[in-house]
Amino acid sequence: MGSLTEMQGIGIGRGIAVGRVVRMTEPLPEPIMTAGALAPQEEGARATAALHRVAVDLTARGEQAGGTAGEVLEAQAMIAEDPTLVDDVGVRLAAGATAERAVFEAFVAFRDLLTELGGYISERAGDLDDVSRRVIASLSGVAAPGVPDPGHPFILVARDLAPADTATLDLSMVLGLVTTDGGPTSHTAILAREKSIVALVGATLAADLEEGTGVILDAANGVVIAQPTAEQLADAHARSAARAALAEAPVSPGRLADGSPIPLLANLGSAEGAEQAAVLGAEGVGLFRTEFLFLDSVTAPTVAEQSAQYERMLRAFHGKKVVVRALDTGADKPLAFLNNAREENPALGLRGLRALRASENILRDQLTALAQADAVTDAELWVMAPMVATVDETKYFAGLARERGLRTAGVMVEVPSAALLADRILAHADFASIGTNDLTQYTLAADRMLGTVTAFQDPWNPAVLRLVGEVGAAGAALGKPVGVCGEAAADPLLAVVLVGLGATSLSMSAAALADVRAELVRYTTTQARQLAATALAADGAGAAREAARALLLTFTRTAKAVHSTYTAPKSSPKRKAEQ
Amino acid sequence: MGSLTEMQGIGIGRGIAVGRVVRMTEPLPEPIMTAGALAPQEEGARATAALHRVAVDLTARGEQAGGTAGEVLEAQAMIAEDPTLVDDVGVRLAAGATAERAVFEAFVAFRDLLTELGGYISERAGDLDDVSRRVIASLSGVAAPGVPDPGHPFILVARDLAPADTATLDLSMVLGLVTTDGGPTSHTAILAREKSIVALVGATLAADLEEGTGVILDAANGVVIAQPTAEQLADAHARSAARAALAEAPVSPGRLADGSPIPLLANLGSAEGAEQAAVLGAEGVGLFRTEFLFLDSVTAPTVAEQSAQYERMLRAFHGKKVVVRALDTGADKPLAFLNNAREENPALGLRGLRALRASENILRDQLTALAQADAVTDAELWVMAPMVATVDETKYFAGLARERGLRTAGVMVEVPSAALLADRILAHADFASIGTNDLTQYTLAADRMLGTVTAFQDPWNPAVLRLVGEVGAAGAALGKPVGVCGEAAADPLLAVVLVGLGATSLSMSAAALADVRAELVRYTTTQARQLAATALAADGAGAAREAARALLLTFTRTAKAVHSTYTAPKSSPKRKAEQ
Repeated sequence: MGSLTEMQGIGIGRGIAVGRVVRMTEPLPEPIMTAGALAPQEEGARATAALHRVAVDLTARGEQAGGTAGEVLEAQAMIAEDPTLVDDVGVRLAAGATAERAVFEAFVAFRDLLTELGGYISERAGDLDDVSRRVIASLSGVAAPGVPDPGHPFILVARDLAPADTATLDLSMVLGLVTTDGGPTSHTAILAREKSIVALVGATLAADLEEGTGVILDAANGVVIAQPTAEQLADAHARSAARAALAEAPVSPGRLADGSPIPLLANLGSAEGAEQAAVLGAEGVGLFRTEFLFLDSVTAPTVAEQSAQYERMLRAFHGKKVVVRALDTGADKPLAFLNNAREENPALGLRGLRALRASENILRDQLTALAQADAVTDAELWVMAPMVATVDETKYFAGLARERGLRTAGVMVEVPSAALLADRILAHADFASIGTNDLTQYTLAADRMLGTVTAFQDPWNPAVLRLVGEVGAAGAALGKPVGVCGEAAADPLLAVVLVGLGATSLSMSAAALADVRAELVRYTTTQARQLAATALAADGAGAAREAARALLLTFTRTAKAVHSTYTAPKSSPKRKAEQ
Repeated sequence: MGSLTEMQGIGIGRGIAVGRVVRMTEPLPEPIMTAGALAPQEEGARATAALHRVAVDLTARGEQAGGTAGEVLEAQAMIAEDPTLVDDVGVRLAAGATAERAVFEAFVAFRDLLTELGGYISERAGDLDDVSRRVIASLSGVAAPGVPDPGHPFILVARDLAPADTATLDLSMVLGLVTTDGGPTSHTAILAREKSIVALVGATLAADLEEGTGVILDAANGVVIAQPTAEQLADAHARSAARAALAEAPVSPGRLADGSPIPLLANLGSAEGAEQAAVLGAEGVGLFRTEFLFLDSVTAPTVAEQSAQYERMLRAFHGKKVVVRALDTGADKPLAFLNNAREENPALGLRGLRALRASENILRDQLTALAQADAVTDAELWVMAPMVATVDETKYFAGLARERGLRTAGVMVEVPSAALLADRILAHADFASIGTNDLTQYTLAADRMLGTVTAFQDPWNPAVLRLVGEVGAAGAALGKPVGVCGEAAADPLLAVVLVGLGATSLSMSAAALADVRAELVRYTTTQARQLAATALAADGAGAAREAARALLLTFTRTAKAVHSTYTAPKSSPKRKAEQ
């Protein structure tokens, strides 16, 4: 490490944390074929013992965890001693493989079998990988991969977190999270935002951070500082306290410094988080995902079943805007009754509205159920279609929604063509909602879940901002609202840029609302547009972020003057309904 | 069918063919699990007999075919009686499956195994599907799927063609090709263009065309006419003769009616087609794919090996421009020495320049070999990087190429971000070459190889044209050439639109050159720009095509006047080097 004490990364949110580094245990490489194999029966004895050890360990952990996590762990324990799998390990041992290789191959084969079965069963395929890694670690005499438990609070440093690891993250112990891989829209970043974990992703140089090192994790400045000075520590503690105070401050509607309202909404995946979102100041729901109603089902839920759920959810937001997205799945999350095909590139496949259009009865039922729930509640219900690419699709969805009596029908803009055709699409849709995660993925042609290409997944990329600006301009010209509901809206400075590009509302994880609210109110509309223009003109994502920060410093330098001359409106700003 | 005699589709090229319909035999649906199974030994006897029948048939066909095709068929025959596979079928029969299901499952399992092994071996996985389908057809007592052989020339009507079917297409028998699925950039369309087969793709209604029906296949007008009248037949024969005469006409450099040169270049995948391309009037090579040097290799070829191949190829084009694309592969075409990872969405993965950058030695070797070949030949060598998304990647590639002494380094524009950042990318690259197939795929977020989303894969989409226009404008502003090397350039009318959008050269299958050359020379630069503006303003791909056709009719109506007033330049138009 030498004198390297500051490591850059992409900060998630504005938090700051101080603690000691604990490193994630990395999975072992793929076991080689047969080198060093003992006699088959000796390798067999090693394999049996390791499978048993892991099963016992998982059972114990399952009992301790309890609840859903407990059930998952116990199911994993059963997998480790599944007779079919154990037999298959035996066959591979007989062919001369080491215990490690035999276990590896048998689990891969079984996983492929599950994946082929599709639907719900295939969702469990990831569990097999986890069990397999545990058994191989046990065989190799190393610690099981995963989040360590040192018995005291710590800053976790990892390459990246698997969804399975994140599920079991103990938030009373993890003070902060640093990953060397992963971009601002990786699973880790999304989780960190949702759970308000102080995090820094894509901090390549943190790979060299040694276990036990004391660090300051400064998400606001996108840096982790190793072996900080006393002065740095004092500053960190002061800022941390100030931020805690901000979180306690009373919430107000989102607005710019000149009073322009920018409603701040919450992204929700079920009705559960509604109350918490309201407490954190959500002025409604900008993205309500409906997948939870459909997953784990063999057949689509009936109109009555759906209607009851929507009604319950709309009641939780009475008087407020709720934007519901129609079912959004594809071959990567196959539903037996929708798209169960095997696709070479599910992200570019029959997904979102495409899949619904191919099974129109499911879409009709969902819209009917929404209209029924709308009729008996007083939330302001908007519906939108996912994965829209063309004007024709827009007309199709809006027509179907209106036929069913739904008043406000819009489209998600996630596909570059939808942004490029925004003027023609908004002629038929009542609003657009930009999904920056997928829009970035498609604009850069880089899978946002794939570690080797995360560097491309940055919504600050001027090409992405340009597309956001196209939608914003079309919305302004036609007088139609343009929301942003991707992770980009939760990055406080980027949120200001998005507003400068024409976004009229922002929707995000409720946990991010306070930081974004505090940032927006610091800038006028003119300043937001200046920030947007600066970012648009940059060569790349990093340069755009830096240019915006640099410009912001010039604003901040004159901030006191601005604040003293700016007079808050006498009455609370009149908030025009965003319709 | 009733009175339906004209079925619309997307014509490939300008050909016209007359003949009788022969329908492709469709593969059977996936065999159901166990319904109607006899006793395991009886099902076993059925399976063994069918596997043997198919093996005998494939061997006979292989002997008849000879050459590479013969080798492939003989390898397939061996697969049908592979002991491991036969054993696996037995295991599944013992579990109560029908012979059809047991064969299906065993082949799927074996295919997955091959796929896992990756590299060259995984390329053979498709063969297993073909053999499996043949065995199941034999068990079910139906004809083997594939191209039929009625013993006389015919118009083939199919859902779509598999690459395996196209390889064995007998061009002395197939007068034309009609597919109900597939878009203008499907494999079938690409093959049809390459081999100059008269073809109509995406002709949904042709699904009802009955075997033996007499038809006119009119690719120029995008229609197939069933049971044509004597008058229609006479017109078809006359146009067919006129087109044959055009093909015989002496070739000249590509230009517009006002004399503006638009060099017409060929796309080539090896040095083999060079001579043929020159005969057809190719003014150079706009896209030379180098994958053939790397596939089927366990290790990357050495600098000396590559240099010898490049030298041979450049000699074939002495004095002419040759644009060589650096190795372009990804996880869908894994190379053991490059990207062999399993990716969820290979089209959005570590591919093209991304993969080369991660294994820079391979890129360095390729550029070194190209520079060596360039030094001893007199073709005008340009090199370009595939799958460039950012300014940073452009700088990286151009820097590396220039370091090696290569004078002209450019980038492929296939990713939407590259088009949106074209002004900044062309500040660092010497030229851009637009790959419309991938650009359309990413802009519409629709896998161009996936049947269920082919409707999106149409380069006439105004969103795609808009991106082409962005690159064209950036090229014009910076004085840098902008070529188009996707299939769009081979659609004569679209070629004119592309020129109107700023393309300064077009590269295509050599077979398409004559039609494009003949079309370009009919319009002035101003008219090309008018066509482009009209297409850009449309709501969708179909509307853009129709609007351009409608505008074209107004040009044609005044064409005689234009032709009589237009005077050809006294000397042959001076063709500025496109640099």
